[in-house]
Amino acid sequence: MDFAPSARTVEHLQRLRGFIAEHIEPFDAQYRRENAEFNAGADWRQWRVHPRIAELKALAREAGLWNLFLPDAELGGGLSVLEYAPLAEAMGHYEFAAEIFNCNAPDTGNMEVLYHFGTPAQKARWLTPLLAGEIRSVFCMSEPDVASSDATNMQATIRVDGDELVLDGRKWWSTGIGHPDARLAIFMGLSNPEAEPHARHSMVLVPLDAPGVRIERMLPTFGEYDPPYGHGEVVFENVRVPKDQLILGLGQGFAIAQGRLGPGRIHHCMRAIGAAERALELMIRRGSARQAFGQPILRLGGNLERVAQARIAIDQARLLTLYAAWKIERFGVKAAMTEISAIKVVAPNLLQDIVDQAIQIHGGAGVSHDVPLTGLFMIARALRIADGPDEVHRAMVARRELAKYGLGRNSKEAA
Amino acid sequence: MDFAPSARTVEHLQRLRGFIAEHIEPFDAQYRRENAEFNAGADWRQWRVHPRIAELKALAREAGLWNLFLPDAELGGGLSVLEYAPLAEAMGHYEFAAEIFNCNAPDTGNMEVLYHFGTPAQKARWLTPLLAGEIRSVFCMSEPDVASSDATNMQATIRVDGDELVLDGRKWWSTGIGHPDARLAIFMGLSNPEAEPHARHSMVLVPLDAPGVRIERMLPTFGEYDPPYGHGEVVFENVRVPKDQLILGLGQGFAIAQGRLGPGRIHHCMRAIGAAERALELMIRRGSARQAFGQPILRLGGNLERVAQARIAIDQARLLTLYAAWKIERFGVKAAMTEISAIKVVAPNLLQDIVDQAIQIHGGAGVSHDVPLTGLFMIARALRIADGPDEVHRAMVARRELAKYGLGRNSKEAA
Amino acid sequence: MDFAPSARTVEHLQRLRGFIAEHIEPFDAQYRRENAEFNAGADWRQWRVHPRIAELKALAREAGLWNLFLPDAELGGGLSVLEYAPLAEAMGHYEFAAEIFNCNAPDTGNMEVLYHFGTPAQKARWLTPLLAGEIRSVFCMSEPDVASSDATNMQATIRVDGDELVLDGRKWWSTGIGHPDARLAIFMGLSNPEAEPHARHSMVLVPLDAPGVRIERMLPTFGEYDPPYGHGEVVFENVRVPKDQLILGLGQGFAIAQGRLGPGRIHHCMRAIGAAERALELMIRRGSARQAFGQPILRLGGNLERVAQARIAIDQARLLTLYAAWKIERFGVKAAMTEISAIKVVAPNLLQDIVDQAIQIHGGAGVSHDVPLTGLFMIARALRIADGPDEVHRAMVARRELAKYGLGRNSKEAA
Amino acid sequence: MDFAPSARTVEHLQRLRGFIAEHIEPFDAQYRRENAEFNAGADWRQWRVHPRIAELKALAREAGLWNLFLPDAELGGGLSVLEYAPLAEAMGHYEFAAEIFNCNAPDTGNMEVLYHFGTPAQKARWLTPLLAGEIRSVFCMSEPDVASSDATNMQATIRVDGDELVLDGRKWWSTGIGHPDARLAIFMGLSNPEAEPHARHSMVLVPLDAPGVRIERMLPTFGEYDPPYGHGEVVFENVRVPKDQLILGLGQGFAIAQGRLGPGRIHHCMRAIGAAERALELMIRRGSARQAFGQPILRLGGNLERVAQARIAIDQARLLTLYAAWKIERFGVKAAMTEISAIKVVAPNLLQDIVDQAIQIHGGAGVSHDVPLTGLFMIARALRIADGPDEVHRAMVARRELAKYGLGRNSKEAA
Repeated sequence: MDFAPSARTVEHLQRLRGFIAEHIEPFDAQYRRENAEFNAGADWRQWRVHPRIAELKALAREAGLWNLFLPDAELGGGLSVLEYAPLAEAMGHYEFAAEIFNCNAPDTGNMEVLYHFGTPAQKARWLTPLLAGEIRSVFCMSEPDVASSDATNMQATIRVDGDELVLDGRKWWSTGIGHPDARLAIFMGLSNPEAEPHARHSMVLVPLDAPGVRIERMLPTFGEYDPPYGHGEVVFENVRVPKDQLILGLGQGFAIAQGRLGPGRIHHCMRAIGAAERALELMIRRGSARQAFGQPILRLGGNLERVAQARIAIDQARLLTLYAAWKIERFGVKAAMTEISAIKVVAPNLLQDIVDQAIQIHGGAGVSHDVPLTGLFMIARALRIADGPDEVHRAMVARRELAKYGLGRNSKEAA
Repeated sequence: MDFAPSARTVEHLQRLRGFIAEHIEPFDAQYRRENAEFNAGADWRQWRVHPRIAELKALAREAGLWNLFLPDAELGGGLSVLEYAPLAEAMGHYEFAAEIFNCNAPDTGNMEVLYHFGTPAQKARWLTPLLAGEIRSVFCMSEPDVASSDATNMQATIRVDGDELVLDGRKWWSTGIGHPDARLAIFMGLSNPEAEPHARHSMVLVPLDAPGVRIERMLPTFGEYDPPYGHGEVVFENVRVPKDQLILGLGQGFAIAQGRLGPGRIHHCMRAIGAAERALELMIRRGSARQAFGQPILRLGGNLERVAQARIAIDQARLLTLYAAWKIERFGVKAAMTEISAIKVVAPNLLQDIVDQAIQIHGGAGVSHDVPLTGLFMIARALRIADGPDEVHRAMVARRELAKYGLGRNSKEAA
Repeated sequence: MDFAPSARTVEHLQRLRGFIAEHIEPFDAQYRRENAEFNAGADWRQWRVHPRIAELKALAREAGLWNLFLPDAELGGGLSVLEYAPLAEAMGHYEFAAEIFNCNAPDTGNMEVLYHFGTPAQKARWLTPLLAGEIRSVFCMSEPDVASSDATNMQATIRVDGDELVLDGRKWWSTGIGHPDARLAIFMGLSNPEAEPHARHSMVLVPLDAPGVRIERMLPTFGEYDPPYGHGEVVFENVRVPKDQLILGLGQGFAIAQGRLGPGRIHHCMRAIGAAERALELMIRRGSARQAFGQPILRLGGNLERVAQARIAIDQARLLTLYAAWKIERFGVKAAMTEISAIKVVAPNLLQDIVDQAIQIHGGAGVSHDVPLTGLFMIARALRIADGPDEVHRAMVARRELAKYGLGRNSKEAA
Repeated sequence: MDFAPSARTVEHLQRLRGFIAEHIEPFDAQYRRENAEFNAGADWRQWRVHPRIAELKALAREAGLWNLFLPDAELGGGLSVLEYAPLAEAMGHYEFAAEIFNCNAPDTGNMEVLYHFGTPAQKARWLTPLLAGEIRSVFCMSEPDVASSDATNMQATIRVDGDELVLDGRKWWSTGIGHPDARLAIFMGLSNPEAEPHARHSMVLVPLDAPGVRIERMLPTFGEYDPPYGHGEVVFENVRVPKDQLILGLGQGFAIAQGRLGPGRIHHCMRAIGAAERALELMIRRGSARQAFGQPILRLGGNLERVAQARIAIDQARLLTLYAAWKIERFGVKAAMTEISAIKVVAPNLLQDIVDQAIQIHGGAGVSHDVPLTGLFMIARALRIADGPDEVHRAMVARRELAKYGLGRNSKEAA
């Protein structure tokens, strides 16, 4: 249970923070403003990437701050998930930072899938350009017509037809599908309906320009479309891809998903914690700079108590996330299921709470684009739903708690 | 303490609900979709009003469901604030409903100011077209450079220069200023800096096309610009209006504001309660229609407890708001200050909580535009800041509570 | 929906408050101290009533402040449940006040049962001395060996044997059974096991000195035995009473219980609200009188916000309780089920919260007997369990909410 | 940041758990019942220690499970505060367990003071018998007449008179002062009123049989007197002790207190976490064993969510406490002030919440002595006040948070 940052983490963190301080922090407000102006009112097909992004990515790559999430020392940072966690937190302070280091979701998860389960040919075609930051990818799992919190509800289908796989289904909240560089979707669907519930689904690599792939629209989150990434609703209609685009094997979809989710949640949660630190900092700075009724706002009412509770909540969440990462690293994802579910509940909720309070301290500015709080809020709000809503994760934690007492699963237990 | 709806309320409510059921409910989804499409990406100067709105307004006027908020029987509904409250709740179910009945903020508050304090000439010029729904108006109070929660921080100035008033200052969150029919601003500024704190400010009627009035931008709320109304940042630079555009008298700004706020908060809170009822309904309908883990979502985990808590919270908030209205009606705004502050805290917070839970039940759809929840969320979130943030109102309730024990005001008490 | 106190309420309230101010308030601390000393360490069989109690009861009776809860004008106050509610609140400020006015639970509920459903002979034997305050009574419903929150779990039995009823079972939390004047138990048990679930139980009047009634022990609440009332565990073993001691008829137990509970909950909740007002007053007085870090404690941290939230919560709860009372009075208990369940959740929880905060402001004194806060806490904590725990009432509110949408009862719904 | 239990901790923990499973767990219910019977109604001067306690202490000492809290390898366990923490948690499951291992408060803190700051003579007289478990000791700091949350309010005085120290003052919540073996008080008072605020107080060793020491009464916590320990109110009137009973030096009181509090809070918080684990276990076992409405209670409403939240909260609190211990060990108490204050807020509050929910699941049994929940509740409730109330610790965390941004202390900051 040693969470101390390793020497490699310390070294990376120092350089990462330096890069952020030099290149990202001073550019943040400008980026948010210009990116909004660029893409204001544009149909998503016209979305553009701010030109400075490519320059920053090149700089980051040169600086060796690239693909830090990938445990492979040759292709990526060579850091364990526990070693990488503090770097993810540092990136979380700025909404667009992870992209600069080629560490943004869902590409990271997709690259991990390819890295762990891809064939050499799959890797050559998709992993290489993803690692180079030349293309972007999406993950197509959620569906609009069912409660996707229960993955067995999934309706999309994968049918084998000779040497081809035929995909049909409607997916939504496919993050990043609006990006001009998006080229690849990992599509999950029902392939083996007769198998036991967790061996029914498969994952397939689909080029976004394959015939039958139709992006119908981008979906706003509280009115924000998050250009140039976006979250799309996409129809797959009789999409045919060669069988060699299947990942791992038929019926392996859940197994891949489980492996994908563990480290991915560490990343998400650490970024959420970084975002919470940012929100707390903004709250303190604004609350100290503005006066009302003869005092800095921060000293009025219960505001200082809120600062204290935020600090306490952040520190606890960070320790729990590091502990989850340590358990994954030491004992594997399965052994860390309680902790992975726990942080999935804790981190987004604390981020939402702290941002809400920071907004309150900012008054009108807080809900506008003048400060980055609403962007952080939406990250939190979306995370409470994505990758399994809070409620599903609480149910999983409870089920494992009861199992300690031999109180076994029954038909009602999932609730 | 008789909150029973009067015969007039019952009669109005029946007709209002009939109108809403016939004309507004079936149009709601279409309106939200088409209004967004209309104005998508448009610069606010090009914002347009959905053509159906004018038709609905005409229908409402014909139906005698017009200016119901105004206690004057000739010009408006002739209903007391307590009698009007249930009508405001009914309108609150749909974001755009109040406008149809010429009962939307801030026009209602502005019309009340003109009605109570306007000269005959002021009424002829401004109140008449407002009551006819031909123009829209804004209220310019909040400022970007100070904590506006403490109104004594206000920096905008009003200077008498011969027969003219000269206005200078920067205002923001001026709601409705982007509307194509917006013509009038009520501007509040410092006119008597030497007077005691609550006699230093005045209110002036300003045509939005007066030289020196410059709308700089619209402000998003969580990314939404709320076309065609909008919330603007507007500069008044050496704006000159004739002295007869002063309301009530120099130094009367706070007195007018107090009178304006009481009934206005009843309206806001009742609409918030209506919105909460809508969110609860959406939560129940969706939660019953979707299944996960073998049950309707609504029956999983603590969801039914959330339904119960929502019902309990709504019923309590409605009673408290009606009680506040009854107190205003019976004893005046001053006597009802505790209750007015209390509902200002209670109603937006419960709306935010219930909408947040309803979003959670909807999953991804909840944060999108497919359902009206994010719009209701933003109403709640903005109301927690507007008209005095929660914290200021809690401080006022506490101060009045302490006063019961003779624990007097001192310099630290405002906190 | 007229909650205004009637002329009779106003008149009674004035005299009641006068009596409390003159006789109870000045005696409270002394009573609590002396009553504890009297009964300290005594076996419950030796519990004594403080001699001043009888004197105060005589004074109250003389003053016409006697049996105010009973709607019958001849036997009691002649007040409706809505009219009585503010009097119950006034009594709630002091733990022992209700007894002085012969308005303490469970005697009030038992008297109501006898009043509404008793035969003339039953009334003569039991109601008359209860109304005179000469004897006390208990209500035996909860059982130690099952989850009594589901009344259909009840195991105690009532068997007809010729002209006699034979009672068997173990009951606990029989409040008041330790009182030296306790003479009567209303016993509920299973009499018609073949009938439909809500027609299986009956209520029987049992003299506490009947052979086979054995009080095994008193139960502490957080270590307090609440002498001279107490909560007992009592065994009924082959207890035989004449058939004429059956109330209303075999299988009528639930029907009687329903009628008993409605007004009883109004009483409980209004007393809880009175207790919350007392706790808030104590919190304000102590928080203003003690200094730390250069300020009155009440002005530190978020304490003033807590005062405001307490005021807001109390006012809302009072209005909801009055509304429930008004609905009972106007439309009957059945029509008010949602509100009766709602106040059952709201009032004890707010009392517990406010007392917890008041304790915190008092520091060490708060948890001791030097101030009456722990007594108020225990009232709240016990009420959250008694008469159906919070969770059962939330489930009932949710069920009725879903029923509005035609979402019918099924086997899972009770959860 | 390595929290993994050391080899020594693992070894001790195994033996400790074995001892608890063999000797304490099976005795717990009997002890609580018999100890209550023993001391029921007895004046505190007659309190007796259950005879089995001495036997268990002897067994524990033989087993080498004795004075584990003391870092000295010869006199105690030789474990660091981080190594000891898991042992404290294990003891926390049972209210009386710490005493068996001579690890109960306030003796542990007092022994640490003597160990670190005592003269050889002081050690010989007081530390030796304390380490042998032959006597008990108390710590006299809180005072009834001031807000002791601000230690500078302290009124008790220490005056040098020749070779003697003269002590005067009234103290309360002196824990353990009712124990038949209590012999020693550590008394804190004002000795140097002219010095700067944190150098004004001293600590003195006082035999409880010194002339002028008068224990006035025991104080109940929610009605419990906690025999045979108790919390007393004690007057020191012209108490004279030789100067050599002064600890460390005049004006060193705060310095000693600071050193005493750090490890002490780790102990308290880990025991609270152990208590929370116990409450959660009881909640799960009871909730699974009892049925209502056709299901185990635990599966009704939001109960499983409460289990999950409890697990998440406990795990976070444990990690934060271990982190605080690690920081104390590595960098000293001063460096760990934020974390020490944070756990002081977190651990008692989560214990109170979880116990409250466990009580609710137990129904009536939960508030009685039949299960150990009310005892655990009182530990939590008292800890929220003792050693600085929550509010003071939140203020400290906030102050240190602001200091990161150079927002310095001023006169208002303590709030």
